[in-house]
Amino acid sequence: MQKITPRTLAGFMELEPKEQIVFTEMQDIIKKTFEINGLVPLDTPIVELSDVLLVKAGGETEKQVYRFNKGENDLCLRFDLTVPLAKYVAMHKNELIFPFRRYQIGKVYRGERTQKGRFREFYQCDMDIIGDGALSVLADADCISVLSQIYWNLGVNITIRVNNRKILNGYLSEFGLENSSAEIIRIFDKFEKIGYDETLELLKEITPKAEEIIKILTAKTIQDVEKLKVENQLFRTGLEEINQVFSALENMNVKNQVVFDIKIARGLDYYTGTVFEAVLNDAKEKISVGGGGRYDNLAEYYTEAKLPGVGMSVGLTRVFDILKTNNLIKFGKSTCADVAIIPLGETLNECLKLSETLKQNQVKTDLYYFDKGFKQKMNIANRQGMKYVLIVGENEVASKKYALKNMESGEQELLTVEEIVKKIKG
Amino acid sequence: MQKITPRTLAGFMELEPKEQIVFTEMQDIIKKTFEINGLVPLDTPIVELSDVLLVKAGGETEKQVYRFNKGENDLCLRFDLTVPLAKYVAMHKNELIFPFRRYQIGKVYRGERTQKGRFREFYQCDMDIIGDGALSVLADADCISVLSQIYWNLGVNITIRVNNRKILNGYLSEFGLENSSAEIIRIFDKFEKIGYDETLELLKEITPKAEEIIKILTAKTIQDVEKLKVENQLFRTGLEEINQVFSALENMNVKNQVVFDIKIARGLDYYTGTVFEAVLNDAKEKISVGGGGRYDNLAEYYTEAKLPGVGMSVGLTRVFDILKTNNLIKFGKSTCADVAIIPLGETLNECLKLSETLKQNQVKTDLYYFDKGFKQKMNIANRQGMKYVLIVGENEVASKKYALKNMESGEQELLTVEEIVKKIKG
Repeated sequence: MQKITPRTLAGFMELEPKEQIVFTEMQDIIKKTFEINGLVPLDTPIVELSDVLLVKAGGETEKQVYRFNKGENDLCLRFDLTVPLAKYVAMHKNELIFPFRRYQIGKVYRGERTQKGRFREFYQCDMDIIGDGALSVLADADCISVLSQIYWNLGVNITIRVNNRKILNGYLSEFGLENSSAEIIRIFDKFEKIGYDETLELLKEITPKAEEIIKILTAKTIQDVEKLKVENQLFRTGLEEINQVFSALENMNVKNQVVFDIKIARGLDYYTGTVFEAVLNDAKEKISVGGGGRYDNLAEYYTEAKLPGVGMSVGLTRVFDILKTNNLIKFGKSTCADVAIIPLGETLNECLKLSETLKQNQVKTDLYYFDKGFKQKMNIANRQGMKYVLIVGENEVASKKYALKNMESGEQELLTVEEIVKKIKG
Repeated sequence: MQKITPRTLAGFMELEPKEQIVFTEMQDIIKKTFEINGLVPLDTPIVELSDVLLVKAGGETEKQVYRFNKGENDLCLRFDLTVPLAKYVAMHKNELIFPFRRYQIGKVYRGERTQKGRFREFYQCDMDIIGDGALSVLADADCISVLSQIYWNLGVNITIRVNNRKILNGYLSEFGLENSSAEIIRIFDKFEKIGYDETLELLKEITPKAEEIIKILTAKTIQDVEKLKVENQLFRTGLEEINQVFSALENMNVKNQVVFDIKIARGLDYYTGTVFEAVLNDAKEKISVGGGGRYDNLAEYYTEAKLPGVGMSVGLTRVFDILKTNNLIKFGKSTCADVAIIPLGETLNECLKLSETLKQNQVKTDLYYFDKGFKQKMNIANRQGMKYVLIVGENEVASKKYALKNMESGEQELLTVEEIVKKIKG
C-alpha cells in the first residue's frame, strides 16, 4: 500500500505527551481559577456564519480569517472569543442574568504568516463581565484580580500594568488633539522601545504642542498624573476610575505586582476605560502574557441594547510556548498515573482487583497487563517518569502486602493496600 | 447603525448557562475518569491537511467533511479523533512509549443533514490503547471498564453489550461464506428490529445455508455459542478472547451490567476483534451512548509499522442531548458560585477582603459589587439558584460574624469566616 507522509500544519501546536500533560494541567488551573471566582462556563461553536462573525472585522482580521463555503452557507472559523460572546449575549439578552460573568476556554484561528511564536490555531482563556446598561468599575478590578490569580496559581511571576484610556484621551482633548489621538497613542505605545528623544521627534510631526503632551509619559505614578492639573472631565473621570480600581485591588490582596503605567494602551479603537497587560518578570524581554480592558458596548452590531463590559484574555498556546522557550516550565513525566502495577507470576487477577481498589481510592493507576518481561516493564516505568511501581508477586498476594517502590529514591517497602493509598496520596 | 441578526448555525450546540454548567461538569467527570485510569492527554489540531486526514475516507465521510483552501493548502476539519491519532502515532512512533494509552476530548465536524439529535459539531471523548506489534486482549477489557466507569461516575444507567467479530467471521467461514460476511452481518445487525422470520428471508436471498447460519443469532450466552461446535480457528480464537475479556471484567469489578451479545457488530470494515456498545437503560428506546472495539492496524496508511489498537468513544454532545430529551438530567443553578456576598451599607472594602478569604479557602464565591438594591440582589441570587447568600452589613463587619442565608431552606445564621467555610464546603 502506498503511504501518505503523516504531518501537521505549520502554526498548529501539537505536543509530546510530557508537554501535553503540563499544558493540560495549566488549562485545568485556569479553569479552576475561573470557577473559584464564580464565573459561568460558555462554549460557542468554532464555526459561525461569516456575516455574523465578520460584522466588525476588516483589514488584518478579515485577511487572516479561515473562511469557506459549505452547502449554501458562507462560514468562518472564529478568530476570537469576544465576537461569539457578543452574538450570544445579544441572542439571549432576555434570559441571561446581568451582570453576566462568563469564562470560555477554546481554540481560535488566525491564518497569520507562520513564524516562531505565532500560532494559527491557539487557545484563548477569556473572562468577561457584561452589564445591562451600566457596569461598576469594580468589574475591572475583578478581571485584573482573576488574571493575577491565574498566574499566581500557575506559579509564574508577572507584573500587571494598568492604565485608563480616559486619562490619555482626556489629556489629548485638553490640548485640542482629539482627532489625532489614535495616531499619538500609537507613538506613545512605542515610547519604551524608542525612548524620549525619538518619541518627541515623532510627536513634533503631528503637533506643535509635542513638548507639552510628552510630559504625561514621564509620569511614574497616579499622583504624578494628578499633578498635571488637567481640568478635562474625561481625564478626571479616568483618574477617579483608576483610583477606584487600585483601591479595590488593594482590598482584594492581589499577590502579583500591579503597577500604574500611563503608556499601556492595548488596541486603539476597542477599549474605552481601564486597560491592563500582564508581563513576564523572568523572561529576557518584556513579553505580554495576557491583558484586557473595558469596552463601552459589547454587542452594538447586533442589538440596540447597551451592554458595557470588561474582559480579560490569556492566549494559552502562546504563553506555553514562551514559558517553554524561556525554560520556565519543567517537563517531567509522560504518564498521568502515579503508580504502575507490575504483575509477577500468576497474579494478574489479583492485580486487576488491586488496580480497581486503588482507582476507587482516587489513586491514578496504570496496570502493566501487557506481555513484556519484568525488566522491560521497569524500564517503561522509568521512561514514563512513573513515581511509584507496585510489584505484585505470588508471595505478595498471599501476604496481602505488596512491594511499593519509589522510583525516585529507589526505596522499596512491603505495604497493605491502605498504606499504599496513604503513601501515594500523601 | 444597521444591525445584523445574531444567530448560530443549525446543528451546532450552544447551551444556556444552566445547561452549560452541567455539560462542563460531565466533561470534567469524563476527563477525571480517564486520568484516574492513568491515560495520557492528547490534543491535536482541528484543522488538518486533506491528503493526510482523508487518506482512508470515501463515500459518506468525504461528502460530510468540511473542506476548504487557505493559501496553497487544501484543508479540512477533523471528522473524528482516530485518524488524527493514527497520524500522531505514525509521526512520533520512535519517541512514544508503547502501549500508548491516550485520551482525547475535542470537537469534531460532520456536515450531516440537520435533524433532531444530529450535530455537525460535536464532542468526542475517546480513549485508545496502541500496541507496537502486539497488544494484549486485556486492553479490550481496559476500554470497556473505562466506558463503564464513565457512565457510573456520570450517574447514568447503561448496559454494555460485548461481542467479538472473530466469532461471526469464523462462523461464516465455516460455511464458506467469507465473501458474503459483510452483507450477512449487515442483516444480523437488523435482527433486533425486524425479527427472526424476516431475517431468515433476507438470508435466504444470499445463501441456501440460511437456516443453519441464523442459529447463531439465537445464542444468548457464550456457552450457547460454544455449543455450536464450530471448528474454525478464527471462531475458536474469538471465543477464547471474549472469555478472557469477561474474566478480566469480572476481576475489575465492573459495576454496570456487561452482557454478551452476538448481534453487536459496529462498523463493518473497521473492527477485527472485540466490539462493544453502551446502551441507555432508562430511555424509551435502545439508544447507543458509546462503544468501540479492536482494530488490527491503526496507522497502515502512514507507516509500515504494525500498530494494533483498541478504542472507545463517547459522543458527548449527542449523549447530552439524549439525556436531556429523556429527562435524565436535572438542571439547577446558572452560577458556578456556591455563595454570593451582598454588601449592605459601607462595607464594600470588607466584602472584597472576605471574598478573597473565601476563595483562598476554595469556596466558589461571587461578590455582588454592582450597583443594585438589596432586594434586586436577593432576586438575582434566587434566579441564579445560588445556594448561599452572605449578607455583610456594618454590624456584621464590627462583630466579625456574618449572616449566611441558605437559599433553599431559608435558614439564616451569624457565623465567623471559619464557620462559613466549613458550612459551605461541608
